[in-house]
Amino acid sequence: MAYKLFIPGPINVSEKTYKAMAAPIMGHRMKEFSDLFASVEPRLQQLFYTKDPVFLSTSSSWGIMEGAIRNVTKKAVLNCGNGSFSDKWFDVSKRCGKNAEFLQFEWGKPVDPEAVDKALSTGKFDSITIIHNETSTGTMSDIAALMQVVRKYPEVVSIIDTVSSFSALPIKKDELGIDVMVTGSQKALACPPGLSLLSVSDKAMKRAAEVEGRGYYFDFLEFKKFYDKNQTPSTPVISLIMALDSKLDDIFAEGFENRYARHQKNNQLVRQWGYNHGFKLFPEEKYGSVTLNCFENTIGVDIAGVIAELKKRYSMAFDGGYGKLKGKTFRISNMGDETPQTMQELLDNIDSILPEFKK
Amino acid sequence: MAYKLFIPGPINVSEKTYKAMAAPIMGHRMKEFSDLFASVEPRLQQLFYTKDPVFLSTSSSWGIMEGAIRNVTKKAVLNCGNGSFSDKWFDVSKRCGKNAEFLQFEWGKPVDPEAVDKALSTGKFDSITIIHNETSTGTMSDIAALMQVVRKYPEVVSIIDTVSSFSALPIKKDELGIDVMVTGSQKALACPPGLSLLSVSDKAMKRAAEVEGRGYYFDFLEFKKFYDKNQTPSTPVISLIMALDSKLDDIFAEGFENRYARHQKNNQLVRQWGYNHGFKLFPEEKYGSVTLNCFENTIGVDIAGVIAELKKRYSMAFDGGYGKLKGKTFRISNMGDETPQTMQELLDNIDSILPEFKK
Repeated sequence: MAYKLFIPGPINVSEKTYKAMAAPIMGHRMKEFSDLFASVEPRLQQLFYTKDPVFLSTSSSWGIMEGAIRNVTKKAVLNCGNGSFSDKWFDVSKRCGKNAEFLQFEWGKPVDPEAVDKALSTGKFDSITIIHNETSTGTMSDIAALMQVVRKYPEVVSIIDTVSSFSALPIKKDELGIDVMVTGSQKALACPPGLSLLSVSDKAMKRAAEVEGRGYYFDFLEFKKFYDKNQTPSTPVISLIMALDSKLDDIFAEGFENRYARHQKNNQLVRQWGYNHGFKLFPEEKYGSVTLNCFENTIGVDIAGVIAELKKRYSMAFDGGYGKLKGKTFRISNMGDETPQTMQELLDNIDSILPEFKK
Repeated sequence: MAYKLFIPGPINVSEKTYKAMAAPIMGHRMKEFSDLFASVEPRLQQLFYTKDPVFLSTSSSWGIMEGAIRNVTKKAVLNCGNGSFSDKWFDVSKRCGKNAEFLQFEWGKPVDPEAVDKALSTGKFDSITIIHNETSTGTMSDIAALMQVVRKYPEVVSIIDTVSSFSALPIKKDELGIDVMVTGSQKALACPPGLSLLSVSDKAMKRAAEVEGRGYYFDFLEFKKFYDKNQTPSTPVISLIMALDSKLDDIFAEGFENRYARHQKNNQLVRQWGYNHGFKLFPEEKYGSVTLNCFENTIGVDIAGVIAELKKRYSMAFDGGYGKLKGKTFRISNMGDETPQTMQELLDNIDSILPEFKK
């Protein structure tokens, strides 16, 4: 049974993208693969707003989130946590045997630039991790304000996870001074999961060259060596790169500004719908994510019941809350190809069954 | 331009498999994903001849080849090298910061059980890596003889790469006492690349629990925790798991023994063809791989010219030699869905252009 996915990733994938993904593969050392690589690369650089290379990693995003730590943390890393994924990054840093400290914020609160400033001013850290858009709570931190602080510390290499915000709003890597910017195929890029993208600054490359124990599979220097040949170090997930190539056609045909505006519009439509029902946004409104809405279940709805019925009756799915927020919150994604019309269809379907599940 | 691939991976993928891959994805925490996982798992265990779990890793095989080292090497690893990939494993071990020693054999020679015995008898090692089938030279070591030696050393955790031999002949993991058995989707399993499979013994799991710095993404204990829920730790490459599910249908419909016999027959057909032309097999005949033939270019053919013409005229491709053997050897894969008829078609096509490229 297939559902139209409004969960915050993986999301709904278009027929066009599936078709592109299922085209015959080529050998990864053949000219045809390098041509494919060369087709996606400059467009990815535009989407990342960067002159740095964008590496293609055959992994989920956690692979390169871990890999980035192994590449750039020599002294110690400051892991900023304000939700399930960012909290876990601290755990992952320690599991890599790195010195790590946790700068903790309440779930649903943004990462606070002042607190970051204070922590970095100790001089203890040579790297920092921040999740721009905490998918678990639908909270989007102010990346411009955060990077303004981080830029004050030239020793600090910044690793910014934009997994669930990338391409839904402009995140200008070079202008902001982000060193390592990470995203995945299965969020706003609306491809199936299994491919991650990372753009790495010169500063981060230089740091990597000094760090022992980087390994091979996620080694920035290996990525760069093969990048220069329009290749990847290991056999890549070719089918997803073909899907991405097709998706980039879509994104450039729509235009970046139109795409950003559409995500904004979809997002506000859902948010207003939630407010009309008396649901409260889980994060503070000004830090509400532009790619999903995480609502508190303030009116006591049987969320699991609604989702089960929505699946059954309309073959659609949204999310019933992540981790410790399960049942207490719910999340509706508006990433990818959705339009105000398709979002409205979802909301109308929910409305048609919601009354049955109010406690 | 798409070519029918007779390179030793990625190989030709059937229309049926592509179609299965392009089915709509589900959320990886949904019941529908766990159902998919539960559908592939017991069949993979049969193909691995194991009672141990088979983990699904969203990566190319190098990811888990590195990950396995990080999981099980505490004291030191013995890397047995007899070709490009196995040689590199030594380099990768060192890059992970592990104590590693290299047991080197000439390219095209098998890994020698006596030499392994001698090395392990020093007591220096708690882990060993062997590539069963060195794809770079088409050399298949005698895994039964090797494991007979390795089993004498209970402290030693064995990591066996069966990337390019798995499912083309029986490799009985439990019977042989293999601790970590690794393979990939894009070789004899005839799926696109991007998914790796590994089956891990209790002994290797216990070792992992004692080793620091395993990280998260390839951590055996994380794989196991989610395996018990029919899930994966991170968002998996769902589309390739759907492709694999479909391919397992094919494999079970054909029957293991028929599948093994077909690979054997295809392989001998190509080998005899090579001999008829006066090409010499690169490895000693008894160690020639069952999934590919690596021939020495003993009759001075312009291999690159043949391949270019074969692509142009017949939209087919084989390989012109790996790494330092480029031009000196060539490799023809017979993995996957090929039959004596389809292999003969390739050989006839080569024959039709070969005379033009003899020097």
